[in-house]
Amino acid sequence: MELNDLKVAYPIFIGFFLWLLGPPNGLEHDAFLMFIIFISTIGSLLLRVVPMAMSVLIGLSFSIVIDLIPLKDALKGFGDSTTWLVVIAFLIAGVIMETGLGRRLSLMCIDMLGRSIMGLGYAICASELILGPLVPSNTARGGGIIAPIVDSMSRALGSEPERSPKSAGEYLHLVGAHANLITAAMFLTGMAANPLIARAAQDVFQVDFDWSTWALGGIVPGLVGLAGLPIIMMYLSPPTIHSIDPVRKRISLDIADLGPWTWQERYMVLILGSMLLLWSTKAIHGWGTTTVALLGLVLILVFKVASWDQLVKNHKAWDTLIWLGGLLTLATAIKDLGFISWFSDHVDQGLEGLAPFGLLIILALIYFYSMYLFSMLTAHIAALAGAIFVVASDTNLDPYLIIGVIAYSSSLCGCLTNYSTGPIIIYFGNGYSNPKTWFKIGLLISFYHLTIWFVVGSLWWKFIGWW
Amino acid sequence: MELNDLKVAYPIFIGFFLWLLGPPNGLEHDAFLMFIIFISTIGSLLLRVVPMAMSVLIGLSFSIVIDLIPLKDALKGFGDSTTWLVVIAFLIAGVIMETGLGRRLSLMCIDMLGRSIMGLGYAICASELILGPLVPSNTARGGGIIAPIVDSMSRALGSEPERSPKSAGEYLHLVGAHANLITAAMFLTGMAANPLIARAAQDVFQVDFDWSTWALGGIVPGLVGLAGLPIIMMYLSPPTIHSIDPVRKRISLDIADLGPWTWQERYMVLILGSMLLLWSTKAIHGWGTTTVALLGLVLILVFKVASWDQLVKNHKAWDTLIWLGGLLTLATAIKDLGFISWFSDHVDQGLEGLAPFGLLIILALIYFYSMYLFSMLTAHIAALAGAIFVVASDTNLDPYLIIGVIAYSSSLCGCLTNYSTGPIIIYFGNGYSNPKTWFKIGLLISFYHLTIWFVVGSLWWKFIGWW
Repeated sequence: MELNDLKVAYPIFIGFFLWLLGPPNGLEHDAFLMFIIFISTIGSLLLRVVPMAMSVLIGLSFSIVIDLIPLKDALKGFGDSTTWLVVIAFLIAGVIMETGLGRRLSLMCIDMLGRSIMGLGYAICASELILGPLVPSNTARGGGIIAPIVDSMSRALGSEPERSPKSAGEYLHLVGAHANLITAAMFLTGMAANPLIARAAQDVFQVDFDWSTWALGGIVPGLVGLAGLPIIMMYLSPPTIHSIDPVRKRISLDIADLGPWTWQERYMVLILGSMLLLWSTKAIHGWGTTTVALLGLVLILVFKVASWDQLVKNHKAWDTLIWLGGLLTLATAIKDLGFISWFSDHVDQGLEGLAPFGLLIILALIYFYSMYLFSMLTAHIAALAGAIFVVASDTNLDPYLIIGVIAYSSSLCGCLTNYSTGPIIIYFGNGYSNPKTWFKIGLLISFYHLTIWFVVGSLWWKFIGWW
Repeated sequence: MELNDLKVAYPIFIGFFLWLLGPPNGLEHDAFLMFIIFISTIGSLLLRVVPMAMSVLIGLSFSIVIDLIPLKDALKGFGDSTTWLVVIAFLIAGVIMETGLGRRLSLMCIDMLGRSIMGLGYAICASELILGPLVPSNTARGGGIIAPIVDSMSRALGSEPERSPKSAGEYLHLVGAHANLITAAMFLTGMAANPLIARAAQDVFQVDFDWSTWALGGIVPGLVGLAGLPIIMMYLSPPTIHSIDPVRKRISLDIADLGPWTWQERYMVLILGSMLLLWSTKAIHGWGTTTVALLGLVLILVFKVASWDQLVKNHKAWDTLIWLGGLLTLATAIKDLGFISWFSDHVDQGLEGLAPFGLLIILALIYFYSMYLFSMLTAHIAALAGAIFVVASDTNLDPYLIIGVIAYSSSLCGCLTNYSTGPIIIYFGNGYSNPKTWFKIGLLISFYHLTIWFVVGSLWWKFIGWW
């Protein structure tokens, strides 16, 4: 019996303990059981001892076996359009990586913008901005495509984890990590769990917070945030090198290595461009976000940019199908069985008398800084976003404002720790910063985000009519 | 432009041609369009030029884009319990293969039963019977596990495709191929497309033709068919060798090679045994077929017989999710949009005056022998099973009888050709028979099947109260 085996059992102990306590006043037994299963599943996600899909499958099948969720409903999350948006986007992102297009676009950004160390920072931000809407796994985008390039740039500048990490590497890694979170916040397809928020918005407010709505609300504060990041980071982690010539040589070599554009890359640019166009113009043609993604996938197959055999082996997509679809079902069940409304009633009593805006700001801050307690953005979203929507829904605030505040905070709050999400773990893991620096700068960056999104964001949201 | 590229376009030409013709009298435009998409998709499956999942995805996205199926409904097939039964069963079957348990069980059957050439035939039938309910891809079971053993037995007996194929190899291969179809017919989980039939039964008759019902109706005629197969094949393709000692030596060596049972194999036997028990005792606990399969999967994960990482890489399961889920949606849509009832009305007019039993027999024979025109059991089921149910539903016959006749015929009719389904293609492809022999014996075996299932079957079904 190893320690890990014991840790596996923690969520079961917690669930059992809660069950012994019995439901609090006014909460129905079924709703209480569903809450226990949900909390235990989220707890298991946070422990990261078993794969996410396994935690979710266990929670799901337990709910089915004790008759809390009928099988028919339990599988609904696997046929949900938000789930399939992410699955299809993962499949497409796999093609972006396999064709080498992602790497080529990043290298091109660096070649064009990287004339100074700060220019390299801007190049990283630009790469994130281009890939942000298209690679829905922020881990694949930041950790898989961009972080390796950032690491190799640092090394080319003579800055290595063991040898003068602060001369350039720390700066570049911090810019990369935090830029990743900003683009994850900006686009519905910027982060795998974002559709959970859109789905909760649909459930609570009956609002279709679709791709173009999400992007519209996020584009201005997001761009301001990205534009300022390389500058503010010059103060928070000042690099000491002056010449970046070694990087420029290295990048030129890397681009030469890639050779001329392949036809697959050209077709991908066309297909991805069409998808972005269609996503932004839903008002004209009426095709939803998932429909457009499906079309993109079919075009990739029809034009043979990738074969079905290649796509079906992208097991990250199927892994996501299971955990996301299952988590969606659990989140729906906890609402349908009445836990969320019970919770909301109780919280409302405590919050009476607060001005709506004051309430929203308090909720946003609680949501943002509670991320210190979570080891995973996805679990944080799954556990809290829906509940906060319900609490805020009793105000007379425009739902778009409430959804936007929570939607954008959901990824931005990952700045706080070095374990919040895959790419952060990878950027930090490259070894250029110590934890203390990472936490300190993370806290300062959280003020930076909150200032931009509360000030620039609220002005922009006023302008587009969200309040 | 290769020939295959041209063949890809055939279904589009057919669809376009039908569209030019316009809908026949009394058929609504939407129903007609849906029919065209469905027929083109089935046509594309039959051509086997592109992967099944790709054909289905194209048909599905076309239906969404032209607004025939709303996106919400279009994804329902991916959250359907029949689809997930098959997906989970594929995942479990992958573990049966990876742990080596499937091979071990087959070898043990041969070791125990294989005392003569006919005994080897019985050993093959016994292997199929044991693995039939558990390995839902008849291709994985017949083609992946058993056919390689059959081939190696034949070679051990000195019977090779190039050298005296008829001395033993043809006999063993024919027994293997036709035994595979019988076990595919006997169990809901014996063949990947069987749940399509159960689903159609639910749609047309509101009858839950679940795992135990399916197995109950099929067990007696199925066992009779398996018991007679090695004997009748002695006449249809008489082997000439007398001693099978070389095989016995070979099998002993193979079993010795496997070594002692691993704990994974032991756990798998326990888990699979529990699943079979729970599947057969639904009346007591009320858990459906899919719930039990999900439980089995979770137990495999919890007891670490396989890791989630291994399971998620079983891309055959995800491939099946896409084609089966999509096909289910298309089949539902063609019914919901009114094509099936229009078709049924027209056929009914032509069939008036026929006695119900006569009608059922005619329908069964049409269904069975129309397999000559299909290159794939799945496409045959998807195209015809639902329509036949609808036509037969106007009689006063017990729905269980109608469903049973079609359900069991669906795999048995694969006996007719050498291209009907994966394992047949593989057994034939091993090269021990020429096509003419295969077709001739296939036709004779079809008489064998029809006699058993019409005579023994109908007596048995009378006994269990199906008519």
